[in-house]
Amino acid sequence: MVHLKDDERLDYLLAENLRIIQSPSVFAFSLDAVLLARFVYVPIQRGNIIDLCSGNGVIPLFLSTRSKGNIIGVEIQERLYDMAIRSFEYNGLGQRLQMIHGDIKEIAQQVGYNKYDVVTCNPPYFPTPSEDEMNKNKHFAYARHEILCTLEDAIRVSSQVVKQGGKVAFVHRSGRMMDIVTMMRQYRLEPKRIQFVYPKAGKEANTILVEAIKDGNPDLKILPPLIVYNENNEYTSEIREILYGKE
Amino acid sequence: MVHLKDDERLDYLLAENLRIIQSPSVFAFSLDAVLLARFVYVPIQRGNIIDLCSGNGVIPLFLSTRSKGNIIGVEIQERLYDMAIRSFEYNGLGQRLQMIHGDIKEIAQQVGYNKYDVVTCNPPYFPTPSEDEMNKNKHFAYARHEILCTLEDAIRVSSQVVKQGGKVAFVHRSGRMMDIVTMMRQYRLEPKRIQFVYPKAGKEANTILVEAIKDGNPDLKILPPLIVYNENNEYTSEIREILYGKE
Repeated sequence: MVHLKDDERLDYLLAENLRIIQSPSVFAFSLDAVLLARFVYVPIQRGNIIDLCSGNGVIPLFLSTRSKGNIIGVEIQERLYDMAIRSFEYNGLGQRLQMIHGDIKEIAQQVGYNKYDVVTCNPPYFPTPSEDEMNKNKHFAYARHEILCTLEDAIRVSSQVVKQGGKVAFVHRSGRMMDIVTMMRQYRLEPKRIQFVYPKAGKEANTILVEAIKDGNPDLKILPPLIVYNENNEYTSEIREILYGKE
Repeated sequence: MVHLKDDERLDYLLAENLRIIQSPSVFAFSLDAVLLARFVYVPIQRGNIIDLCSGNGVIPLFLSTRSKGNIIGVEIQERLYDMAIRSFEYNGLGQRLQMIHGDIKEIAQQVGYNKYDVVTCNPPYFPTPSEDEMNKNKHFAYARHEILCTLEDAIRVSSQVVKQGGKVAFVHRSGRMMDIVTMMRQYRLEPKRIQFVYPKAGKEANTILVEAIKDGNPDLKILPPLIVYNENNEYTSEIREILYGKE
């Protein structure tokens, strides 16, 4: 049983046997979150994982199918935090998946420094707009714009909580790559694996997946490109498999 | 008429109506040089272009078909410089294409600071090995290893000679991307266009093409991936067209 509020729905996380609470007027997870949850290396049997800017908890939910470790999500918006908690409970994952309602900028003191094997983050993508350009729906505005959390905040805090040799994985717009990789190096996170996501063959990339290792040696791999849509504007077989599982 | 020395050959630059002097025991141009010469934006009607670490002058020769501007190549190995000069003459390009025999580290004083619209460079790729690992053929060793010119030398000098708003384009191993882009920023060169080259579909990239603008605004485009070989280990149609022209 789950208590759904207002216009919330109980959606399937399709490739997994999981359900997730979403709401069209508040938040629905994106393909980018799914791609990040699949991209990052995770310890399979044990370990501590933390997901920053966790929204409705989609990344912890996905990661719970890949790792038996403990996973914490951190979300500043109470409404989304509340959706995540109820989704974790509904899926019987309340023991292993924990949600913290808080500001990531002060989270290291609470969750511990240099402690996590893996940090994931799908941060707000866009610089803070002027007041009149900003989305009037504050749930969307906080999730999309760097109002409560800048890219540098997210990278700095990731570096604080990850252990030496641990992994930090981000998804972001590929146009921000220079900022991401230079800030990562500044905070002792050495990018080791990058994958670009292209909306279609022959188009420029729009999304970047980056995994860095704290105090890692420079040695970068650029993974094969990921193409989202085919020439008929349908998901490619690779993306279908990620979203819906093997057919 | 051309005077060929020792084991030199007069090879075709296939997609262009040009010939180039090469030698199996000294130097032959690589696909990477061709890809760089095609990747970089060049002014069509006029302008000043300089190619650092120019080898046998393959990049100036290619660029001469894309720009009517003046093109200078700089090469430290006299044997390669001499091959380039004779190739330029053979193709009747001695007026527009100039070759300088010199060390790029001191070249800015000679060719001028903040003067060039475009700088290209296909530098030595590999860190200096120990004496016994090093290629006994010094022509190959100097062309492949950072013995006479490090990546930072090449980026620093590019920044010295390019004008504000001018372009600097490099080709290198993709594993060195972090060093390239962070050093470019350090020398006021903002990466604006990147293309990754993959040996085959489904494999990791091995080569990166980067174009930066001096004092440019951060705004990076990741171009569509370039795949070199198909599943039958033949050049893909895209690479065939680059090398041999439209069929």
